[in-house]
Amino acid sequence: MEIDVERLWRGWRRSPFHSFLEMDLSEFDREAGTVSFSIPFKEGYKRSPKEEGIHGGVLASIIDIAADFALAVAMNRISFPTINLRIDYLRMAADGDLTAHARTIKKGRTVSVADVEIFDAKGRLCAIGRGTYATAE
Amino acid sequence: MEIDVERLWRGWRRSPFHSFLEMDLSEFDREAGTVSFSIPFKEGYKRSPKEEGIHGGVLASIIDIAADFALAVAMNRISFPTINLRIDYLRMAADGDLTAHARTIKKGRTVSVADVEIFDAKGRLCAIGRGTYATAE
Amino acid sequence: MEIDVERLWRGWRRSPFHSFLEMDLSEFDREAGTVSFSIPFKEGYKRSPKEEGIHGGVLASIIDIAADFALAVAMNRISFPTINLRIDYLRMAADGDLTAHARTIKKGRTVSVADVEIFDAKGRLCAIGRGTYATAE
Amino acid sequence: MEIDVERLWRGWRRSPFHSFLEMDLSEFDREAGTVSFSIPFKEGYKRSPKEEGIHGGVLASIIDIAADFALAVAMNRISFPTINLRIDYLRMAADGDLTAHARTIKKGRTVSVADVEIFDAKGRLCAIGRGTYATAE
Repeated sequence: MEIDVERLWRGWRRSPFHSFLEMDLSEFDREAGTVSFSIPFKEGYKRSPKEEGIHGGVLASIIDIAADFALAVAMNRISFPTINLRIDYLRMAADGDLTAHARTIKKGRTVSVADVEIFDAKGRLCAIGRGTYATAE
Repeated sequence: MEIDVERLWRGWRRSPFHSFLEMDLSEFDREAGTVSFSIPFKEGYKRSPKEEGIHGGVLASIIDIAADFALAVAMNRISFPTINLRIDYLRMAADGDLTAHARTIKKGRTVSVADVEIFDAKGRLCAIGRGTYATAE
Repeated sequence: MEIDVERLWRGWRRSPFHSFLEMDLSEFDREAGTVSFSIPFKEGYKRSPKEEGIHGGVLASIIDIAADFALAVAMNRISFPTINLRIDYLRMAADGDLTAHARTIKKGRTVSVADVEIFDAKGRLCAIGRGTYATAE
Repeated sequence: MEIDVERLWRGWRRSPFHSFLEMDLSEFDREAGTVSFSIPFKEGYKRSPKEEGIHGGVLASIIDIAADFALAVAMNRISFPTINLRIDYLRMAADGDLTAHARTIKKGRTVSVADVEIFDAKGRLCAIGRGTYATAE
């Protein structure tokens, strides 16, 4: 039976930490194992009280969540524990809404992999991430 | 001139995202390039509203901040942009206070490296991280 | 002045370790910052004397070289020191020729990033890698 | 029954790629899950025909093998497939013998983690690595 992806995401949103992040699911494709999110800007994401820029911890958190959800959608499951996560920060993300695109790289019996790209409000690629998740049943 | 480390940390705490995390600096050693933090538990760190466990994004954020601060202390500077960050999740962190220990691995002219360990309230090693920072003057 | 890419690659091939690997440059695109290699099979690449499969160290080495060369082509330079390298092994590479495609992700003033995919003789994606290189002049 | 570690290593040495690397097992500790190797210098390890320095691919390969062997010793098993591998290059390894120390970080039911340090002939830490291995029975 196919999981109702939007309902699944509403369930994820009840996570206390996810409610800090307030990510909106904008697209998904079960076959491709891809999901996209828009993340409206919040003051609490900023690195510095005065200077421009979103904190790397916020980007890392978005990457973890988006990669995990892409695999959940691809594999028709609820969620998976993260084994490891790698983030490359390519440029400072400007204050403003973010967009994240995650895609399934490998669906494995015990371990799976997904990639994520985060764009800032100016449409610039700011961070890329790759995560490995424990997907054994 | 030597930076006042505790004052530097109070400055970091004014970061909007750092105020979500509320990390307390507990120890530091300039020579060794090490810093330790205690992080009092908050409901907002949880993965799930009902089940035990702190979100991996919280751990990733703590690792980024602790590694960066270890390098700032070791190199007597304010802070550095993260180039990349890698986190290995070893076991679920129990609900409760966390402890993070960061140490400088390499002080380089353009790029530096620090390692971080996070222990949960039961004293178990839950996550390890390694970050690369842009330290060119 | 534009570097002669094929001549640059012949220079790289004179590296003692590169002569063990015997990678053939098959394509490149300066604008896109992409390069492709074919790597003819050698018994010396095998993991095991009896069982099928190419050693992960061989794949890691190909990824390091291909990523570095993609950046050299993209940035019209000779080569760059590797800062760090991450490899995800997706499935065992079958005995047989390999193909590697590398692409430039970020051309930075001090640090640059490239991604690599390795396919085995059956056309299956076997390993993906991401490397960070020191590109300060 | 306890595996004969030295015999296990002699078996590993029959791997075609391991015979290129010629690593000598110098120490091991089953309880701690640590292993050490000395790696006599070979011209074939060099980055460049004229300049000093060992190729990063050689260091990556040593890290993969040493991490995997540390887990085999710690878990009393034969060997494990690598899931992913991360290497930080801290400084150029001088021409000369290398030493590698690997230690078990996590022994897991499905996934395990080990860390490796490589020192060059001058006793300088040149590269550090962390690998994740599939250890499900």
